[in-house]
Amino acid sequence: MKKTFLFLAFFAIFVPVFAQQALFSGTDIISPEINPDNSVTFRFVAPKAVKVQVTGDFLPMVKTKSPFGEVESAGVADLKEENGMWTYTTNVLEPELYSYKFIVDGREELDPNNVYMNRDIASYTNMFIVKKTAGDKGDLYSVNDVPHGNVAKVWYYSPTLQINRRMTVYTPAGYEDSKEKLPVLYLLHGAGGDEDAWPTLGRAAQIMDNLIASGKCKKMIVVMTNGNANCEAAPGEWSAGMYKPSFMGHTTGKKPISTMQAHFPDVVKYIENHYRTLTGKKNRAICGLSMGGGHSYMISRDFPDMFNYIGLFSAAIAMNQEGAELTMENKSVDPKTEEQLKTLFAKKPALYWIAIGNTDFLYKNNADYRKYLDEKGYPYEYVETDGGHIWRNWRIYLTTFAQRLFK
Amino acid sequence: MKKTFLFLAFFAIFVPVFAQQALFSGTDIISPEINPDNSVTFRFVAPKAVKVQVTGDFLPMVKTKSPFGEVESAGVADLKEENGMWTYTTNVLEPELYSYKFIVDGREELDPNNVYMNRDIASYTNMFIVKKTAGDKGDLYSVNDVPHGNVAKVWYYSPTLQINRRMTVYTPAGYEDSKEKLPVLYLLHGAGGDEDAWPTLGRAAQIMDNLIASGKCKKMIVVMTNGNANCEAAPGEWSAGMYKPSFMGHTTGKKPISTMQAHFPDVVKYIENHYRTLTGKKNRAICGLSMGGGHSYMISRDFPDMFNYIGLFSAAIAMNQEGAELTMENKSVDPKTEEQLKTLFAKKPALYWIAIGNTDFLYKNNADYRKYLDEKGYPYEYVETDGGHIWRNWRIYLTTFAQRLFK
Repeated sequence: MKKTFLFLAFFAIFVPVFAQQALFSGTDIISPEINPDNSVTFRFVAPKAVKVQVTGDFLPMVKTKSPFGEVESAGVADLKEENGMWTYTTNVLEPELYSYKFIVDGREELDPNNVYMNRDIASYTNMFIVKKTAGDKGDLYSVNDVPHGNVAKVWYYSPTLQINRRMTVYTPAGYEDSKEKLPVLYLLHGAGGDEDAWPTLGRAAQIMDNLIASGKCKKMIVVMTNGNANCEAAPGEWSAGMYKPSFMGHTTGKKPISTMQAHFPDVVKYIENHYRTLTGKKNRAICGLSMGGGHSYMISRDFPDMFNYIGLFSAAIAMNQEGAELTMENKSVDPKTEEQLKTLFAKKPALYWIAIGNTDFLYKNNADYRKYLDEKGYPYEYVETDGGHIWRNWRIYLTTFAQRLFK
Repeated sequence: MKKTFLFLAFFAIFVPVFAQQALFSGTDIISPEINPDNSVTFRFVAPKAVKVQVTGDFLPMVKTKSPFGEVESAGVADLKEENGMWTYTTNVLEPELYSYKFIVDGREELDPNNVYMNRDIASYTNMFIVKKTAGDKGDLYSVNDVPHGNVAKVWYYSPTLQINRRMTVYTPAGYEDSKEKLPVLYLLHGAGGDEDAWPTLGRAAQIMDNLIASGKCKKMIVVMTNGNANCEAAPGEWSAGMYKPSFMGHTTGKKPISTMQAHFPDVVKYIENHYRTLTGKKNRAICGLSMGGGHSYMISRDFPDMFNYIGLFSAAIAMNQEGAELTMENKSVDPKTEEQLKTLFAKKPALYWIAIGNTDFLYKNNADYRKYLDEKGYPYEYVETDGGHIWRNWRIYLTTFAQRLFK
């Protein structure tokens, strides 16, 4: 390493001149530090702060009152200060991807020593992964020493929406050097998300790399679309400029001329024309979370010959065409919807898979839908997990659902 | 938009339940706000803070003393407080991509209302773009309503380094639907960077999209490699885990068995075997900044038949094989290097392009190299800009250099 060493020594002399670019504002502080026993230590330098706390999903949830009644939120723990350095060590943690932020004198702050973070709509949280053994959740969400698939941001034209749109396409390791045709999973995000949600918060590429490498999952292409019909791409990635993202998508943009579900055949057509795919219903799967679960429900219903595997993750399910009169409100089921579902199930999809957490606010919505399916005798599989409307569940659902596909 | 409205109304009822995921911790505060006159207003809510400042490259540089002598760093301005809301409005700004951070009671903090940020090694800064007229720098760095190229993270095996490695590949708009073969620009980052540096800090995809759309630049594939021979990919994107990045790359990792420059033919071979490329020297260009300028210098010198266009941006140039005895130290030029440069220039590259800022710490290094080239009568072009070793210059250099290629 002589060459590198000397080269860098040459730079080191001039380090201070870089100050404008903040190239060297890093420090030696490691935070978070995953300890050998899988407890985690946070460190934060703030000599003038009066109180430094950490809030994260590794702490027990707390119940607080709100105008909407009792709600759960992530717990908070106090850091202790010594010579301006604040520290906190967690209990031993189970394998998982965890998120956190500091609260410094009442104001949320990112950890300046952790470059790993995820954006969810308009806010960032830092992240870390705890893993213990091969194949556990932490291991599955990590980048391991296995062959990696490529991840591309791909622009396609939608004749239905009449705009160019961006999607994320995962091609499994080896795709480029093979002639093999692959099946395709379409993986949809929730409200407030975009084509970056599953690759970041969802760890989709890591999950697929690891499942495929261990032989638990078939090789497949995974297509992560943008589910906001009035957006071309994620915030900042299209000509709407660097707007502040919101739960309602891009609120000041043009109204779309059609819907996510109506445009979906454009996506399938683009993928099958541009990638080496196995085609036909039996080689296509669709799933999504929350709004994307609603989209998966509607798309599979509207195009009953398109998908053989349908996954609804904490899905927002509407039993009519407008997506408004929800079963949970005891509104009547739209006759067209009834007819479409009858047609869909008559065509016997290989898997109609419903998953939700037992404290999810859409639990009743999904329970009502399951009751409807039961009454009609439409077969489906159901998985219920602990917890609510959270990425922790959606990563588990992707992991479980992906292993069921194309077998 | 009735469907979307009703769908979201359905969600709104349950908003508080999302609290665990911080999905709704956004606020209505807009910061930064680009005003109609191209001044920019920052807003920051901190009722308990005593002093809130902003530091950014839109403020005049200040000179301060350091152990290394006088150094320049970004200026600082005070925000004013009213009812817990701190604000500051800049002067009217020229078109440019700007970076900033807040300083709250002495501690640097990101703007919680701006989701747009760039990582440089281990630190983040927020960013915004000011543009005035079509084709100005701000416009060139923006995502405009033009056809967009795809950007892919691509894994390749390097027989020379004997590892799988990740690079970023930009294919221009239309590539997927054409049979046209394209030339290739290899675009290299500096020390501390990785294959994410040019696509983020360098705005490479935006620059290429806009130059190509306006006809100022030939359509080309742009390949952005990882220049750290002991790394497979950017931090967090390979099996080394979520380590803290440093200027010296991944310091605790394995030593590489070869160098960036020696492995470079592996990259060219992969690209030409997997993309629709025009091949041969006249269809290949290489350029890079700082360490990547040094790499471009060494790779073009070591492989004189490979590149017809060579761009050295604020390059770290070493006049011997080890990359240590620099001309600026008045060390002798290595005879092998002399011979290689003689061979390179005898083969008459179409463009040997050197650019540097007049306050760059590598100015003397480059001046010495230019003197050497002049003495030998080796032709090159030279561009000198204001400023130092900063991305602002490297974006300009890419813009200028790209327009000279393959014509």
